[in-house]
Amino acid sequence: MIILGVDPGLTRCGVGVIEADASRRLSFVHVDVVRSDPRISQDLRLLAIYNGLTSKIDRFSPDVVSVERVFAQENRSTVLGTAQAAGLAMLAAAQRGIPVALHTPTEAKMAVTGNGRAEKIQVERMVARILSLSEIPQPADAADALAQAICHALRPSGALEGGEREQHLTLAQRQWAQAQNQTKKRHGVDRGM
Amino acid sequence: MIILGVDPGLTRCGVGVIEADASRRLSFVHVDVVRSDPRISQDLRLLAIYNGLTSKIDRFSPDVVSVERVFAQENRSTVLGTAQAAGLAMLAAAQRGIPVALHTPTEAKMAVTGNGRAEKIQVERMVARILSLSEIPQPADAADALAQAICHALRPSGALEGGEREQHLTLAQRQWAQAQNQTKKRHGVDRGM
Repeated sequence: MIILGVDPGLTRCGVGVIEADASRRLSFVHVDVVRSDPRISQDLRLLAIYNGLTSKIDRFSPDVVSVERVFAQENRSTVLGTAQAAGLAMLAAAQRGIPVALHTPTEAKMAVTGNGRAEKIQVERMVARILSLSEIPQPADAADALAQAICHALRPSGALEGGEREQHLTLAQRQWAQAQNQTKKRHGVDRGM
Repeated sequence: MIILGVDPGLTRCGVGVIEADASRRLSFVHVDVVRSDPRISQDLRLLAIYNGLTSKIDRFSPDVVSVERVFAQENRSTVLGTAQAAGLAMLAAAQRGIPVALHTPTEAKMAVTGNGRAEKIQVERMVARILSLSEIPQPADAADALAQAICHALRPSGALEGGEREQHLTLAQRQWAQAQNQTKKRHGVDRGM
């Protein structure tokens, strides 16, 4: 199963692609950032982001597109542009009949680090570890898009149905626990939630 | 010049089309609401709104698409969906090489009633009067989309360039003043700003 994760943004929109096998072993496929020039008009920026996203979706033919859920409470000046970029990712998937999943940033951080408020560098390290990368994926700030894809692959609700779920959940949880333990050994115990 | 106005929304997205001649005389072309079912998933709702908007744009081939500007400060729970619908209208226009204009609700109300805080019924009445309609356009809540289009046609910055601008502004202002006076006569003096 190919999962394409999106960390939405109007200036920088992260795209991370992973593959999950039947045992939920995850492997890295692609990571990139789709950009738009802040100096051009908003409609042309939206077009640039949409074209970049559709190009990635058509290249990797994901089975699911996992998009970071945006909240109105975020008082960032960029929140509307972020919501619009997320909307374009959902539109592009829906146009191709590809299912869309939405996961919060907290869920994604929890999925890769076990801490919903983990710092960026910790998320990046764990993304690299879970995907067996020798270094932090570049560009570094697209790690959130990979985390979004990993979150969907390992989510407790399960992409896998029926009797297999229990077994695969256990595998996924084991994978997490191992990766978390390795990080703790190397970087010391996490700061508390 | 054909102007297509959009009052963005994820559940109900107003579309109003007008024609402005060289003297900025305005005539009604079309009004409708593009809907999405709140019970389906967000990606499919966005797809429904996008398909509805592109269908209108392709049918009327506007010279400009005028979209209501959305503000993050709006503490409505629907603000992100509204921003996303606005983004889809901008995308659809940009994909066709059609220029996009953004006007605030206050600008649109000011343009049609002379009062940036006019009530809905007053906006509806003035839209009908400016477009020489015998009754309030149906569906009534799409009047905002027509107001958005009228706002763009009559905006002081002018779609028309050079020496003609002064003359056309005067015509437009005369049209406004006449319509406002008629409304005041019929419905009594407006409540103050």
